[in-house]
Amino acid sequence: MTDVAIEANVTTGPIPYSTKHYTDLPGVPGAKVPWRRVNLTTGEHFDLYDTSGPYTDENAVIDLSAGLPARPGVVRDRGTQLQRARAGEITAEMAFIAAREGFPAEFVRDEVAAGRAVIPANHNHPELEPMIIGKAFKVKINGNIGNSAVTSSIAEEVDKMVWATRWGADTIMDLSTGKDIHETRGWIMRNSPVPIGTVPIYQAMKEVDGDPRKLTWEIYRDTVIEQCEQGVDYMTVHAGVLFDHVLLTTDRITGIVSRGGSIMAKWCMTHQTESFLYTHFEEICEILARYDVTFSLGDGLRPGCIADANDAAQFAELRTLGELTKIAKSHGVQVMIEGPGHVPMHKIVENVTLEEELCEEAPFYTLGPLTTDIAPAYDHITSAIGAAIIGRAGTAMLCYVTPKEHLGLPNRADVKAGVIAYKIAAHAADLAKGHPHAQERDNELSRARFDYRWHDQFALSLDPETAKAYHDETLPAEAAKSAKFCSMCGPQFSAMRVSRDAREYAAKYNLIPITPIGPGTDN
Amino acid sequence: MTDVAIEANVTTGPIPYSTKHYTDLPGVPGAKVPWRRVNLTTGEHFDLYDTSGPYTDENAVIDLSAGLPARPGVVRDRGTQLQRARAGEITAEMAFIAAREGFPAEFVRDEVAAGRAVIPANHNHPELEPMIIGKAFKVKINGNIGNSAVTSSIAEEVDKMVWATRWGADTIMDLSTGKDIHETRGWIMRNSPVPIGTVPIYQAMKEVDGDPRKLTWEIYRDTVIEQCEQGVDYMTVHAGVLFDHVLLTTDRITGIVSRGGSIMAKWCMTHQTESFLYTHFEEICEILARYDVTFSLGDGLRPGCIADANDAAQFAELRTLGELTKIAKSHGVQVMIEGPGHVPMHKIVENVTLEEELCEEAPFYTLGPLTTDIAPAYDHITSAIGAAIIGRAGTAMLCYVTPKEHLGLPNRADVKAGVIAYKIAAHAADLAKGHPHAQERDNELSRARFDYRWHDQFALSLDPETAKAYHDETLPAEAAKSAKFCSMCGPQFSAMRVSRDAREYAAKYNLIPITPIGPGTDN
Repeated sequence: MTDVAIEANVTTGPIPYSTKHYTDLPGVPGAKVPWRRVNLTTGEHFDLYDTSGPYTDENAVIDLSAGLPARPGVVRDRGTQLQRARAGEITAEMAFIAAREGFPAEFVRDEVAAGRAVIPANHNHPELEPMIIGKAFKVKINGNIGNSAVTSSIAEEVDKMVWATRWGADTIMDLSTGKDIHETRGWIMRNSPVPIGTVPIYQAMKEVDGDPRKLTWEIYRDTVIEQCEQGVDYMTVHAGVLFDHVLLTTDRITGIVSRGGSIMAKWCMTHQTESFLYTHFEEICEILARYDVTFSLGDGLRPGCIADANDAAQFAELRTLGELTKIAKSHGVQVMIEGPGHVPMHKIVENVTLEEELCEEAPFYTLGPLTTDIAPAYDHITSAIGAAIIGRAGTAMLCYVTPKEHLGLPNRADVKAGVIAYKIAAHAADLAKGHPHAQERDNELSRARFDYRWHDQFALSLDPETAKAYHDETLPAEAAKSAKFCSMCGPQFSAMRVSRDAREYAAKYNLIPITPIGPGTDN
Repeated sequence: MTDVAIEANVTTGPIPYSTKHYTDLPGVPGAKVPWRRVNLTTGEHFDLYDTSGPYTDENAVIDLSAGLPARPGVVRDRGTQLQRARAGEITAEMAFIAAREGFPAEFVRDEVAAGRAVIPANHNHPELEPMIIGKAFKVKINGNIGNSAVTSSIAEEVDKMVWATRWGADTIMDLSTGKDIHETRGWIMRNSPVPIGTVPIYQAMKEVDGDPRKLTWEIYRDTVIEQCEQGVDYMTVHAGVLFDHVLLTTDRITGIVSRGGSIMAKWCMTHQTESFLYTHFEEICEILARYDVTFSLGDGLRPGCIADANDAAQFAELRTLGELTKIAKSHGVQVMIEGPGHVPMHKIVENVTLEEELCEEAPFYTLGPLTTDIAPAYDHITSAIGAAIIGRAGTAMLCYVTPKEHLGLPNRADVKAGVIAYKIAAHAADLAKGHPHAQERDNELSRARFDYRWHDQFALSLDPETAKAYHDETLPAEAAKSAKFCSMCGPQFSAMRVSRDAREYAAKYNLIPITPIGPGTDN
């Protein structure tokens, strides 16, 4: 699949307490919808949406050099998901997504047809398990990986991709800017069970030795085609950074912080002309339509600090993205819109409102936002706050931020920390939006907690390994995990035991009817 | 100061890049208002609100067995801060707070007089540096420490107190339930530069061998007096858990999760009579008024999971807390109100609205809230999201949650993780509320970031040690910290450098006026 051989090791095997489970998909022979099946000590089970691909299937044979098998039902000659949805078709991908999300397939189709949701699935990436990005669905999260000029290897990046999806990344962006950029992406594409996004201008910059002034439309176009051929599912294109916008950034504290945005700004200033991404936008649409690659219209002028949030430059670019959205959709290309960045809490919702108004409710895909600038090393937390709030307001996908943001490249531990923080933000948003199934998992875990079913509490959590390890730090004995107490209250008195007394008391005096509150509460 | 000798080691010395700085307080001879002075590489400095006491002063002599020196200006015979504020007096504590917060002393007094802010400062705790809890001021955070029946020692708890205030805890609650409960608190009180809160019923339970049925008003009263004498600054009293409320919890998924709430519920059910905390509430007021101990009216029926949030039991108790607030204030006792707990994002603001309406805007003091139940081991993050949102809505103090929540007792690393997560939430809330000085630190740090002044970026952050360590993981050489690039972009191209180009370009063509954006941006 690529000329470069690597020695890669990735993490395989089920997440503790869980097994891989598949359901068939009526109408798509051979299709298997994956689940993480949590096996409870009560004998019951609880199935979770699963992004991790075959790597968590103990029966799967993983061969990185061969890549993952192709899914059934891939169609290459009937246009994009958007075009097919408009024509009334329910694609195999839509059926798959409907099963994963628990919605009727017709609803999935209609959201795609309206441009309120996208299904990033390049015809040349048949290895992926279809997923959808749209505000009516579960809030998704993206994990960024990729090498830079100063660090990292192909094997490390493949490992990070598998690792990030293991913990719940719904898509992966390969932001490599260093060596072996094509080969790195090839290994990631062929082994990724989730859509892969890129920023093609990073690779184009390699072709011109890192000098943005030497970029040309032709170099950029050829890079885009190369990546489309390789199977990239969505691409960040900073076509909204116009020559005139650049001057709106000069009063900012942190100017232009987007790499792509600054490359285009430099190009415009050097050549004193309009951005080639903007002037050639329809040609880009024609290319993307051929492969069904989804636009992720980049926010090259996103704010890099609290002081610069929601300023004239940012919103001028958003207006241009609104124009470009209409053009892309007229070509049948699926579109999502990227958003900030650094925004204080009280200015977050305005971003969503304006994006929906200007961009016809195209799915919003934001980086955080970070709600303060003062916590480098903890920006997964500063931004999880912003991500939860913007997710609740209607943002469809949240790009993770790791503890290394602003400081260095994320390692494996950082990738996991970023993914978990963002799974929290996304799930908190799902609860607040009233997603029909979101609260079932909270309730199941809380029942386990109330029943002192410690293993089930770990099993249902986002990170069973760490939850169990933290518990065992204080009370390592296995007996403590079936005991009806915890290290906080100690064995003598337990708050939760009193709640049982209250129920018994109420029943004894027939004060109010007792409602059963779930399995196993009577033990 | 206590009969038990301990071998305690606490962390002393300045936080990297900072020195201790004091300003005099006009009108209070000998008073010294403390600051963390961040020394920048530009030769300038930036002063930060400082909770860490003498421990971060390199010139201080720390003797744990002697305790901290008393502050000047302590008055014991003129009643509570509330009574003195009503009488129009500006106390030494109010003057100190006005200097720390950057508000006129008259404003501090008026907020206290209105009951919208409290100054927890027991006459018998002269070691503390006065601080205020109220929605007009900086959002504060509390760190919980304390041993349990199964773990921890006095020395560990003193160390955690100093450690938590080093990173920014504004108050500390000693929630010890294990052995040496009186002595542990004594060591903490005498060495704490911040107000100390307790839950007296935890100690009362020790007197009855952990059996809530044996509790009596007299045992509780004597415990409260003992703790008042020792200098405790605020006390959680679960007087709002009425007999009738208990039955409202029987349909919940997690019943009663507050330890104090469940103790009182058990007592009421056993004796089939009203809570002695409620029936003797005026006597508690009389005791607290003598020492100026502040009420923290406990939410014994707070929800323990998403499903139980904002239910009848929770809000019935809140209504009772409203009644009790009026009674406490009629005795001249300062009052704050405790809040949840576990609440999904869309139900958070209602808690604040109702609290303000029912409790005359008494300062709200909430635990998180956690915005989902599914992430044990990461509840500092699930709850930092809720804390930021509830802080923005008007909550005055946020009780931290550590990664060990629901799993075990926090160790030193957990305490720091909890404090930092909550400093983030509190600061994000300050920014969103438009606190007049909050954004200055963000802007200063962002200017350092834009200028590639790496050391200043670390220095201005919440945790300079970790920020520097993360940077150095990728680029350890000292030269990399003065280089005009980072590991994300590499040396060839940098987004931020383009922003300088944009300014030069605009200046060259006289396109728009260039505004200077802060010190050192021209290097």
